[in-house]
Order: sequence, then structure tokens, then C-alpha cells
Amino acid sequence: MSHNTFGHLFRVTTWGESHGAALGCVVDGCPPGIRFTLADIQSELDRRRPGQSRFVTQRREPDQVKVLSGFVFDEDGETMITTGTPVSMLIENVDQRSKDYGEIARQYRPGHADYTYDVKYGLRDHRGGGRSSARETAARVAAGALARRIVPGLVVRGALVSMGVKDIDRANWDWDFVGHEDNPFFTPDPASVPVFTSYLDEIRKAGSSVGATVEIVAEGVPAGLGAPLYGKLDQDIAGNLMSINAVKGVEIGNGFEAARITGEENADQMRMGNDGRPMFLSNKAGGILGGISTGAPVVARFAVKPTSSILTPRLSIDKDGAEVEVRTKGRHDPCVGIRAVPVGEAMVACAIADHYLRHRGQTGRADA
Amino acid sequence: MSHNTFGHLFRVTTWGESHGAALGCVVDGCPPGIRFTLADIQSELDRRRPGQSRFVTQRREPDQVKVLSGFVFDEDGETMITTGTPVSMLIENVDQRSKDYGEIARQYRPGHADYTYDVKYGLRDHRGGGRSSARETAARVAAGALARRIVPGLVVRGALVSMGVKDIDRANWDWDFVGHEDNPFFTPDPASVPVFTSYLDEIRKAGSSVGATVEIVAEGVPAGLGAPLYGKLDQDIAGNLMSINAVKGVEIGNGFEAARITGEENADQMRMGNDGRPMFLSNKAGGILGGISTGAPVVARFAVKPTSSILTPRLSIDKDGAEVEVRTKGRHDPCVGIRAVPVGEAMVACAIADHYLRHRGQTGRADA
Amino acid sequence: MSHNTFGHLFRVTTWGESHGAALGCVVDGCPPGIRFTLADIQSELDRRRPGQSRFVTQRREPDQVKVLSGFVFDEDGETMITTGTPVSMLIENVDQRSKDYGEIARQYRPGHADYTYDVKYGLRDHRGGGRSSARETAARVAAGALARRIVPGLVVRGALVSMGVKDIDRANWDWDFVGHEDNPFFTPDPASVPVFTSYLDEIRKAGSSVGATVEIVAEGVPAGLGAPLYGKLDQDIAGNLMSINAVKGVEIGNGFEAARITGEENADQMRMGNDGRPMFLSNKAGGILGGISTGAPVVARFAVKPTSSILTPRLSIDKDGAEVEVRTKGRHDPCVGIRAVPVGEAMVACAIADHYLRHRGQTGRADA
Amino acid sequence: MSHNTFGHLFRVTTWGESHGAALGCVVDGCPPGIRFTLADIQSELDRRRPGQSRFVTQRREPDQVKVLSGFVFDEDGETMITTGTPVSMLIENVDQRSKDYGEIARQYRPGHADYTYDVKYGLRDHRGGGRSSARETAARVAAGALARRIVPGLVVRGALVSMGVKDIDRANWDWDFVGHEDNPFFTPDPASVPVFTSYLDEIRKAGSSVGATVEIVAEGVPAGLGAPLYGKLDQDIAGNLMSINAVKGVEIGNGFEAARITGEENADQMRMGNDGRPMFLSNKAGGILGGISTGAPVVARFAVKPTSSILTPRLSIDKDGAEVEVRTKGRHDPCVGIRAVPVGEAMVACAIADHYLRHRGQTGRADA
Repeated sequence: MSHNTFGHLFRVTTWGESHGAALGCVVDGCPPGIRFTLADIQSELDRRRPGQSRFVTQRREPDQVKVLSGFVFDEDGETMITTGTPVSMLIENVDQRSKDYGEIARQYRPGHADYTYDVKYGLRDHRGGGRSSARETAARVAAGALARRIVPGLVVRGALVSMGVKDIDRANWDWDFVGHEDNPFFTPDPASVPVFTSYLDEIRKAGSSVGATVEIVAEGVPAGLGAPLYGKLDQDIAGNLMSINAVKGVEIGNGFEAARITGEENADQMRMGNDGRPMFLSNKAGGILGGISTGAPVVARFAVKPTSSILTPRLSIDKDGAEVEVRTKGRHDPCVGIRAVPVGEAMVACAIADHYLRHRGQTGRADA
Repeated sequence: MSHNTFGHLFRVTTWGESHGAALGCVVDGCPPGIRFTLADIQSELDRRRPGQSRFVTQRREPDQVKVLSGFVFDEDGETMITTGTPVSMLIENVDQRSKDYGEIARQYRPGHADYTYDVKYGLRDHRGGGRSSARETAARVAAGALARRIVPGLVVRGALVSMGVKDIDRANWDWDFVGHEDNPFFTPDPASVPVFTSYLDEIRKAGSSVGATVEIVAEGVPAGLGAPLYGKLDQDIAGNLMSINAVKGVEIGNGFEAARITGEENADQMRMGNDGRPMFLSNKAGGILGGISTGAPVVARFAVKPTSSILTPRLSIDKDGAEVEVRTKGRHDPCVGIRAVPVGEAMVACAIADHYLRHRGQTGRADA
Repeated sequence: MSHNTFGHLFRVTTWGESHGAALGCVVDGCPPGIRFTLADIQSELDRRRPGQSRFVTQRREPDQVKVLSGFVFDEDGETMITTGTPVSMLIENVDQRSKDYGEIARQYRPGHADYTYDVKYGLRDHRGGGRSSARETAARVAAGALARRIVPGLVVRGALVSMGVKDIDRANWDWDFVGHEDNPFFTPDPASVPVFTSYLDEIRKAGSSVGATVEIVAEGVPAGLGAPLYGKLDQDIAGNLMSINAVKGVEIGNGFEAARITGEENADQMRMGNDGRPMFLSNKAGGILGGISTGAPVVARFAVKPTSSILTPRLSIDKDGAEVEVRTKGRHDPCVGIRAVPVGEAMVACAIADHYLRHRGQTGRADA
Repeated sequence: MSHNTFGHLFRVTTWGESHGAALGCVVDGCPPGIRFTLADIQSELDRRRPGQSRFVTQRREPDQVKVLSGFVFDEDGETMITTGTPVSMLIENVDQRSKDYGEIARQYRPGHADYTYDVKYGLRDHRGGGRSSARETAARVAAGALARRIVPGLVVRGALVSMGVKDIDRANWDWDFVGHEDNPFFTPDPASVPVFTSYLDEIRKAGSSVGATVEIVAEGVPAGLGAPLYGKLDQDIAGNLMSINAVKGVEIGNGFEAARITGEENADQMRMGNDGRPMFLSNKAGGILGGISTGAPVVARFAVKPTSSILTPRLSIDKDGAEVEVRTKGRHDPCVGIRAVPVGEAMVACAIADHYLRHRGQTGRADA
């Protein structure tokens, strides 16, 4: 990966700041013949859209996506069919209250990228943090919506598994509940909703923020995707997830737990399934061995730090080196990890699509 | 990253299997004028060399490195000076007891890449796992030895912070002890040596293995290295570390801990130092904000799973789908995480060198 | 280069078809602090815009560029200053008479990409040739307008040096005349205008087309840009130029002439200039030796084939393999090489900007 | 392409100087199951080996290649089978008379890369020009020998079509004669041998050198390889050829001739062949339309300049800016273009293999 493009054969380039005219992405390497509708993309974007509950920023953004290239319409005039040329998608920024940010134009918010941007570039777009805004992730989600359709049978789902000190009960895991309208947290555990609600209300009222952990599970990943060492599927997934702002840790399968157990405990034993195909009796590896997919579900988790934009005053400095106290007003997510769920799904889907095309070829027509 | 090359301007390509004639790497993009001796490279290799204690594989490999290109000798006839052309380094394989592996040529070791290699490639070099052997990491360490010298003042050190269920006591942290001759574990905590010793002796005698956690700290990283989103310094570090075989998790700074705390607790406040330069009152961020280095030490940790090569019989299948029991004789590390310490250092050093050159330019002469 | 992105540190991704809603590019790796106005970009686009004389397609396209990201406005509210984040530029398609193309939707125009697109992708956007339309080059010109501003003192100019069998007289070379309003050919030779005019009128009236040769000269290229072998400056210039549709040949300096002379005749001798700096007594090398710039002007030429869209009926087949005769109505350039002049300038400017950033670093601040 | 690696899925990294211990390459992305013998590689290397006639440098190099990784031996113990891991190949330098170069260590040979290397790197390996030596091409030829075997049915052949002012007669074209033992020029025209012989003898005796033009023809290239714009097959071929030292121009199909003719003359008409498959009635396009292969033979030509290493004194300067006269003794090719023939074949084969894998997938097993 480099700069603002990721992927090797399925290449995504994102652009745009939170307070510019628009943001978007160019999806390059999308095979021809992929059928989708605008609603397929929009529905993914709607999942991460702000302003849907009091637990996410109240900034109002319709996030209406436009697809500008790379397709022809089918006879029905609605279904889009990719042609193999770059798919350019654009989302206009509507609700930009730049004045909210006026006062911090010259100050460095602790924990934020203000300082490092100034050091690197000598100037920065302070409005909403420019590229470091969570808005950039809309472009990733749009790209992911295409990526999901490239690998036949692929299903990529995500869930919030912890918020601050509160963990879900995995015994209650219910994928269907994750998208439920009464579930503002993407939690798979219905019992966790009241817990997260009261917990996050406190955080929010205190003008504070809190971190979270997200788990992504990809089912239907064919065995054989990836490469042994420097193009490992898990490495690219880790890189993709770590490229999301505020992510501080990534693990595959049992992850850090693997560091605490023995070879016996960690090994996924094998047997032949009733379908006459190899099967694993467990999935500690998270569906990847030696960088290559096993055919078992690919499992990844990532840690999202609390947003640095909080009301509590913190010690900092400004551009001139004057020592100041910073408090961020504006409209921010008390737990930015919530909206990271669909973003994580998108990044994992993109990594899998990329390796699928490396394996099956640029046109992906080996399946046709 | 792709295939067997990593890095963007400081590019490392590794090659070789554990049971071929040799293995090595080509370091491309190394700036001209970097001065080093063969001993500088060899000393790094010696740190990861097997056969040094009963806690690592008894395979005997001198691991003598040869530098074949990319330098001219200084007048002293000993100091090498890079010319800016590719530096090719080669390490011959000496001790190859292929027979050790004969019996598992057709069986899939649970937790090993045997199955996925066969699925992907249709054939594999089973001897020592081919590319998936820990021997490949020697090439990384050789490349890292050069990377360390590219950034003036850069110091990259690593330590083992946990072995299986045993953790070190950070209060005892002593960098000088890590390389001590009576310390076969790269632990920074002298008090942990007897604990690790008895613990690992048990594991070893049981023919088992255990995982570990490694921490890498890079000091002297200039502020401003990295990029906001898809070329984040932390992302490239995470990708580099995840590309090491057996690594299942990576975290930057406080990592997964960040998911459990509030914005107040997580923010690194700033003040002006006595040297008149900005300083951070803490380093939860691990020296990276928004993908760009802050000037504070860069801190990364990674989890190494226990090797799958254990004596305990495990259920598996063979190439024909016959159900078998697999036990791996051969000579293996009871805790492969130990030798991962210098490897992790090398991978972090390479990521930093790469971003340093992106920032300062291909020739790195902006400092001259 | 790969797919639709070119460049290593100065990376340009283009997207869009001639008959979609819009086309554009994302310029990634543009250093911060580059100052420009919309007029700077627009003026370059206007140079290649169709509909300006009877010698280019009568398709009417205002080609108004929008810059959507990667900048902040200066106090004057007009000057844009790059921030180091991706610069996304968009040009809407206005005049799209798809019906013109209806009849060739299923036929393969000889010399056109119709057949190969169908073979590769199984479907194609036949309207105006989709990606293979000359309209795509507008995105390149927009990117080139930024590239020109990255290298201090860089001046990149191009000229048409031959049209079909007619050559200019180099003795009359006048750069100022190239952009003259009475010069619809980008020719540097005033005497060639009446010749090209009558020649091209014949071609046009006959419903035919003709090829051309374009020369690009870049002055102010610092010595030391490029790399010895696989990142040669001339190689990247050749690749960039060959990526323009209809280009069939590229040469650097004296090019193919070098194959016909001796070492004595080809060598550019050196002396010290009055300014105390090395100078070359000739420039057969075209400003590049061993892949690295010498400081002399960089000179490249490329051959543009005649457009395949002609009225004369040609033998061909259709998608079903039926043998047909094809004649292309629509609105086409009798000499597409004319509008290739600003495109060639842009591609050379992008290659030089890329190598400048490799040499000086991602932020290009070494000069600040 | 970047630095010393080229290709996207079939990636070749070369390393080594003419006067170091060895040179070589790492071929990454070679699919598994490719069968070859050491003789297959060696025979290609022998074609470009110096010291075979008085028309090439008298430097004696056995150029014995060693394959160090990426294969397993078949039962016969001789046939090598690629495993999909990197294939590292090494060629030792034997005959290094560094003293020959002593006197030019500080002088810049006109037309050579001496000056630009010093400008860029601040130091250089003057011995034999370091990386800019023709010896580096041995690594390309070794890589090409593998590339040739990746695309089933691919045949890539090259020939010298002009030497200085002397052209071959295409009416006499005989591929079988190109490799004939009495043909030291790779010319396809038997009648040209005496002409070239006397012509080059004069050049050689005069201590001079002369340029040449080489034509490469690839047959058996499947239709559909390439990409529309920035991954054009012809663009990658042009880049690959231009990356060869001393190459100053590249053309595809009728190349620069296309700039001088009309659309009618340039169009390759189509009909259905007796085999029921589309066929072209001519091949002006050189087998590539819109960047994608048509199935017709791919034809490329490149111009090789005369070597700058000549006995005739030329004006130049040295490192200190002192004005000097330079004459190069040493052992050099009077027409380096001769040995460029197998090199050009290798570079074209690599580009085709790369696009074949992009199209068919990393493992290339779609054909299995």
C-alpha cells in the first residue's frame, strides 16, 4: 500500500476531506460483468451514516453516493454492470459547520493528528481534521460494497464485541440482531444493548469518549487465497484494518490469545467432512495458515481508540509553541468504534477481493 | 506489499527455502554512502541463530552472510560503502537433515501451512516447510541490519514480554540485560529468567511448544514519517510484523488497551520541553498519530503462536484425504517467539527506513 | 504502472468514459504548499479541448474542471494551496450523442480496440470507445497541470513536428508560435501552417485520417533525477507516452537515429560552462544518461497513429463472427496527433515530477 | 516499475555489478509446476555471452548460472519444478580486470552514465560502469528463460535488423539462420553477414562503435492480455525495452511509420479464418490494440546506441571539474546492439508472462 491507494489487483484510491466539496473513491481492477444497483452501495453507506442515533455524531449527512464511471446499464435501466474500467464513486459533503472548528485551527488536540500533519506538511486542513476525519471511511464502505460482490458466495459481517470496559456475552451471539433497528451498536448480543446504552450515555454526557473492539467474520472465502510471506492474506487484512483512523491493534483468529497457549491447544485438527472435503475441527487460525486461506471463516478483530475530540480540557501547545489548554466542541462520536463496524467489513472484503483476483486473474473470468 | 517484496522506496525482496542451497535477500533503494562492515550484518544474524541454547532448535547453522553487490570497499578494505545499487546478501544452508521430514511429506501438520500450500500451488517443498520455515527470517534480519543504519540516530530494540502464561515484570525492565549472555530469552527482566527456564523446560520435555509476545521500541524516529491513511507508518509496521510467520496479532502503543479506556485516559498531553521542542507527557499512541511519527519512541507489540511442529499426535489428513495422526519429530523451537525478537526489530527498522526515504528522498542525501 | 494508476510517489489515477456522466483523476502524492488557481488547470485543458477548429472533432465539450479535494484556499479566496492529501479533479461530459455510435455497437472497427475489449472483458462500453476515447486524456492534462508546478523552474513544452508525410522545417522553430491563435496545429514552424492546412483539409474531406509525430522538450530538469535501470527517467517517460491511446513509438534524444551512427558521432562532449558548472556541447542523449537526468533539456518524441474512425468502409467482423463492412460516422479528429501535444507534455511533466519527489522526498520540502 | 524490480505479478528483481563477486536475479511470482532444466536457462545465457566472436567484448565469462531456490527436483533428479516461491538465480563474475578501468575512475566518459551517477549518488562503482554494465543483462536473460515457459505455446524470437547505416533485406528473412553458428550478428538475412562483417571490422579497428536496431517477434500470445490504459501490454513492453542500457527508442508494430500514413493504410482489416476464428489481414498494430493483445504476433523494435566506450579521445571533465580528454581502453563491444537481441527477447517475454498471470491469476493454474 502507498499513499491513498490500497490493493494490488483490486485497487482502491480514496480522496476527500470532511469539509471539502465532496469525497469519494476510484475502484480500479473491478472485474467486468459484476452486477449491482445504486441501492446496493447506498444501503452499505447508510449503515455507517452519522446522525442516526444519539450515540454517533449529530452531523447530518445524507451520504448519497453517485457512480460516475465503469459501468453500463442493463436493459432494466437500473442494474449496473461493471465493464472492467475504473468505477468512480462520489459523495458530496452537505453539512459542514466549519465555524465549529475555528478555535482549534492553531491548537493541537492531544491524541489527534493535528501536530503530526503540521510537522509533515507544514500546513493542514484543520476543518474536521481533513483526511483524518471519520468521513473518509464512507469511501471505503462504497468500495467494499463492490468488493463483496466479486467473490461468489462471500459473506462479510462485523460486530462490536466490546465497548470500553463492557464486553458482550458471546453465548448470546446473534448475527441477525446486529442490524436490528433497535440496535444502535452493531452488537450481536441483545443483552448488551441496555448495558452499552447507559454506559455510553454517561460517557456522552461527560463530554468524554470511549474505545471499542470490532470483530469481522468472512464466510465463503475459497481456500488458497493469499501468499506465503509478504502478500499474506492476514497481513493485507491487518494492513487494511490498521489503515482505518483510530485503529491501534489488529488480530487474526485467536490473535494475542495464541501467545498464551501451547501447540496442542492452538492446533486446528483436521478430518474429512461428510461432503468429502477437508474440514477443520476448530478455527483458532481464523481461516488463514501460512498467509493462505484454509476455506474456514476468516476472523479478524481490531481495537478502536476513543476519539481525541472531547470536551474535557487537556494540556497541549499551539503552532507557535505556546502552552494551551484544548477542549473540542464540535459534534463527535462518543464511541467512534460503533461506526467502524461497516468500515472494517469493507476493508476485509477489499483484501479478500484483491487476493481472489490475484488467484483467479484480473478479469476474474476463470469462474465464468 | 506483494509476494516476496516489501517496502516502497526501501524495498526488500527475500528468497530461499530452509532446505535449498541458500537463502537471501536483495535490498533495493538503499541510499549511497551508508558505511557498514560484514561484522555489522553478521552480529545481527548471530542474535537469531539457532543452536545457541537448548531452548531453540538444535539445527546447527553458521549463518555466514555474504554481501554480493551494491557496495565498494573503503580504503581500509574492510568498511563497505553502499553505492545506491541493490545490495544482494546470501546465506548458505549447511545443516539440512531432509530425512527428518520424510514421513510428513504427504501429511498435513495441524496449524501448519502444509494444507494451504498444497491447495494453492498443487505442490510444495515439504522439507522444513519451505518458505514457511523460520529460516527465511535470517534474510529479514540481514536487511534490517542495513535499514538500521539509514536513519541517523535510530535505535531499534526488542524484548520478549511474555512466554505462554508467564509475563515479565515491567518494573524490572533493563535493556542492557536483553542481550546478556546468561539471557537465552531476550527478556528485559532478569527475574524472569529462572521462571521462563523451568517453564520452557517443561514444555520442551513434553514435546510441546508455547507462544510468546514481543515488544519492539524504536527511538530516534524523526517526527513526520508516514502518511495519513494508506501509507500509515503504523500500518506498514503492522503489515511488516504480520508478514512474519506465526504472528497472529499486532498492536501499536497501548494497542488493544486503547479500546478499553476513555479519551481523557488515552490522550497524550503536550508541553514544551526544556530543549524548546514539543514533548508528549505520555506515549499511549506509541509514537504515531494519524499514521505519522510524533518524534516519541515508536512502540509495537506482536503475538507469536506456538509452533505447530510438536511431538504430541494430532488428528489430520493426508494428500489423498486419508485420516491420519500426525506427530512432528525433527528439531524445533519450543518457543519460536524467542528468535522472533531480532526479526521483529528488523521489520520495524525496515518500515521506518522506508518512510524515512519517502520523506527525505530516494538518495537520503537531504541530510548530507 | 498498473491498471489506471501511474507514478511511484507522484501517483495519478484516471477514471471515466467518454459517454458517462463525467471523467477525472486523483492526483496522489502532490506535495503540500503548491499554489495554483483553477485557471491554471483550465488553461491547460482548453489547449486540448475539441471543437476549436475544423481540424479536430466537432464534439462540443466545455471541459470545465472542478477541483474537489486536497487544497485549502489562500486568503484571497482564489489561490488554492495543496495540503499533501489527494487532489481529485472532475470534468463533466456534456455533449454525448450516443446515437452516433449505435450502429457500431456490435461491429469491430479495424484498428480500434473494440475487438480486444470484447475478448478481454466479454463486454464493452462501445459509446465513443469507452476508456479508449481521446476524452480520457483530459484527465491526464489536468494532472499534468499540477505536475508542472512541483519542480521549481520546470518548463515542459510540446510541438507537432510532422503530420503524415509533411515535416516541419526545424530551422523555423519558434516556441512562441506554437500557441499562436492562428496556429491550429501546435506546429513550431509558421511556414508549415498553410501546408498542414491544405493537406489536412484533403484528408478531412476524404473522410480519412492521418498520423503525426510530437516532440516534447522539458527544460529546467535538475540533474540526478531517475534511477540506473528499472526506474530510468527515460523508461518512465516512454511508458507514460506509450500509455496514450494511438501512440505506437517513443524515442528519447536522437532516438532511432542513434542506431545509425558511431560512438564518436553520438557522444555529447563536456566542458565547464562560464557559470562554473558542467555543460554538454550537444544533447544527443536528450538530457538523460544511464536513466538519470543530466541537467540538459529532456527531449522525447512519440508517433501517433491515424484514428481508426474513418468513413471509408473497411472489412471486419461483428460479435457473432459475421463478416461485415465498417464505416465510422460520428465526429472524429482527422489528425488526433494534434491534440496529443498537450497530453504528451502532461505525461512527461508527471514522470519528471514523480522522479523529483523520489529524489527530494514525498513532501518535496527539501527545497523549502 | 521501480528501482530494480519490474513486473506486477511476474516480478523480476536484478542485482549485481560487472566487477562485484556475482550478479543475479530473483524471479517472484513464477507459477508452480513450471518444469525446466539448468540447460534451459544456460542455453539462453550462452546466446548473449561475450567472448564468442571478435565482434563482442573479449572479456571471458563462462556465465554459469546457479538456481538457488524456488524449485524441487523431479524424480529424474535433473528436471526442476517451480514451487511458486521465488526463484533466485546467480552468476559469478570471473574475469574482472579492474585495472583496465583505473584511469577513468575520476573522469566522465562522454555518453556514459559516469557523470549522472556521481550527481545522483555522490559516488559510483566506476569498475565497468557498475550497474550500467552490459553484464547486468545476463540476469534479465536468465529471468526471461523462465518467463518463456509460463505461457503455453509462446515463442519469442529476436533479430538484428540494422547495424549503423546497413540494413538487412527483409525479403531474405530466415529465422533459422538467426542462431546459425556462422552468424555472429543474430541477423535473419544470410546476405547481410559479409556486409556486417566488413563494416564492423572497420569500426572495430578504428576503435569506434556503432548502433543497431533489434526486432522482437512474439508468437502464440493469447488475445486479451494487457489493459486499456496504464497497464497496456505495449506500454509495459516499451518500458521493459527502454530499461535496457543504451536503448534510445522503442516502437510497436509499424511504429513511427504509423505517423506517416492514413487511417485506411493503417487499419488491419478482419475476416473469419478457416479455423472459424477471427483473423487479421495485416498486422500493422503489431498484435496489440488498445493496449490489449489481438492474438496476432506481437512485434516490437528498439534502437541501441553505440557504446560510449571508444578509443577516440573525446572532450570531457573530471570529478573536480578539470577539463580532460577521455579515451576508453578496456574491452568493449564495437556493436553492443548484437548482444541486445537475446536481452530484448527476455524483456518482451517477461512482459507477456506478467500480463498472462494478471489475466489468468497468480498461480496460472487456470490452464491446468
